[in-house]
Amino acid sequence: MSLREHLAGQRKRVDAELDRLLPSETVPPEMLHRAMRYSIFAGGKRIRPILCLEAARAVSDTAEGVMTAACSLELIHTYSLIHDDLPALDNDDYRRGKPTCHKKFGEAMAILTGDALLTLAFEVLAGVDSARADSRVRLIAELAGAAGTVGGMIAGQVFDLEGEHREPDPLLLESIHRAKTGAMLRASLRLGAICAGADEDQFAALSCYGEHVGLAFQIVDDILDVEESSEGLGKTAGKDAQQHKVTFPAVYGLEASRRMAERERQEAQDALAPFGERAAVLRELAGLIVQRKT
Amino acid sequence: MSLREHLAGQRKRVDAELDRLLPSETVPPEMLHRAMRYSIFAGGKRIRPILCLEAARAVSDTAEGVMTAACSLELIHTYSLIHDDLPALDNDDYRRGKPTCHKKFGEAMAILTGDALLTLAFEVLAGVDSARADSRVRLIAELAGAAGTVGGMIAGQVFDLEGEHREPDPLLLESIHRAKTGAMLRASLRLGAICAGADEDQFAALSCYGEHVGLAFQIVDDILDVEESSEGLGKTAGKDAQQHKVTFPAVYGLEASRRMAERERQEAQDALAPFGERAAVLRELAGLIVQRKT
Repeated sequence: MSLREHLAGQRKRVDAELDRLLPSETVPPEMLHRAMRYSIFAGGKRIRPILCLEAARAVSDTAEGVMTAACSLELIHTYSLIHDDLPALDNDDYRRGKPTCHKKFGEAMAILTGDALLTLAFEVLAGVDSARADSRVRLIAELAGAAGTVGGMIAGQVFDLEGEHREPDPLLLESIHRAKTGAMLRASLRLGAICAGADEDQFAALSCYGEHVGLAFQIVDDILDVEESSEGLGKTAGKDAQQHKVTFPAVYGLEASRRMAERERQEAQDALAPFGERAAVLRELAGLIVQRKT
Repeated sequence: MSLREHLAGQRKRVDAELDRLLPSETVPPEMLHRAMRYSIFAGGKRIRPILCLEAARAVSDTAEGVMTAACSLELIHTYSLIHDDLPALDNDDYRRGKPTCHKKFGEAMAILTGDALLTLAFEVLAGVDSARADSRVRLIAELAGAAGTVGGMIAGQVFDLEGEHREPDPLLLESIHRAKTGAMLRASLRLGAICAGADEDQFAALSCYGEHVGLAFQIVDDILDVEESSEGLGKTAGKDAQQHKVTFPAVYGLEASRRMAERERQEAQDALAPFGERAAVLRELAGLIVQRKT
């Protein structure tokens, strides 16, 4: 099976589990449940869930509750996109070529939809029947920390807001991205590692891979924002520059940014050495993330 | 010690624990942590934490992690107020006589502050050292369910939004309040019961008390909104009517609403019979909730 086929299969399994975890559109409040499903099934690439599943596979053939853990990452990621797109924050009308949640359902509903997905992420982790209670508690602590305010995703959002109209600065740039995307990407690997019962060395190696892949991902994201047309990216491109965001190309220029992404890819792949062939997909994923065009 | 002194003491202990759980204002992102503390320490009565502590006391003298559980309820309650006050939702400029979070810190920061408190609630529950892992998982599942979209607080918010400009209707009214305030008040009792190791009968009795107290609380809230001046309530009073919200006085009239609140108080107190003197404070609290003037 090719990597592309393998990833398509994983995406399908993740989508089936998300469909199972999300409340039905026929259960009241119907409109809210429709909005949750609209944003979850808006064409996401499921990068975080797949990283989680592959981290587990690098460690062991059995991993209790790993599919639910994978989906909890996508619930958090989607809530963050919905709130980030709101008029008071990035004010984006389109994402992946579709109207954003608040354009489709109104601002009040979009705020509540984000809240609902965030709450559901913890509810599903608490309810994983197959995982032992102490591993469920570890999953929840890890996810909440990565999504939180001390070095986590929400901290990154605030640094990002505060960074607008500031001078591009390497230190600020790193602190934004380590928090904003890095923490959740690293957590994706860690949740998989926890489900698979990784030992300390394996946990550290997968965390290290996650940090480098996270940075590579963000550098490429910034490069694409500069390069891509509005159409290809499915969101309003060049917006970082318009909003005077601190980005890698703004601080280092395009060429140096590309070299940095390559270096991060290499370091991510190096971290996988202890897993040998079990980490083949993770190894290829690091390459895909750097080469992606959207 | 009088009830008033006892409650003041409980409030002080809750505030000390909240202070311990919230990130310091000197930790970046400083502004966000300041906003979290501003809203948490804005003069709340700590009803939910106190109900939690007293539920535990009705069951046992020892309750692992009950103070943290009590605080997690206040974190969720405060996040819901911050988001509820936003311009896209109830658009309130004042709460408890102080500027609301978005008036003080801006809309973007208020959205993120709510997200942060919601996330922190689950993080602190996952991190309760003193409680066993299976009881921590039960606390998280219970809290997430009560705050969630199927019969929980977020469902209530949506019903409330959808109820504006509809004909006052007893069934709609009940479904709004059972979800909007009832679920979280019931969860307050249940979290205390779980920490104290309540058996099934005790859990059911405290849940029953919580449901009736929750309804009494909401009826009185609706009555106060009609009666109180803007000044006394510390928020813009008479707003329910302006916004055409479905309320108890709108459906049943003031006099019948008062009688309903009394009946709910009585049923709440009746549910406490099995606990005898251990539930003395819960018994008095039900009375206080119905007699309160703010």
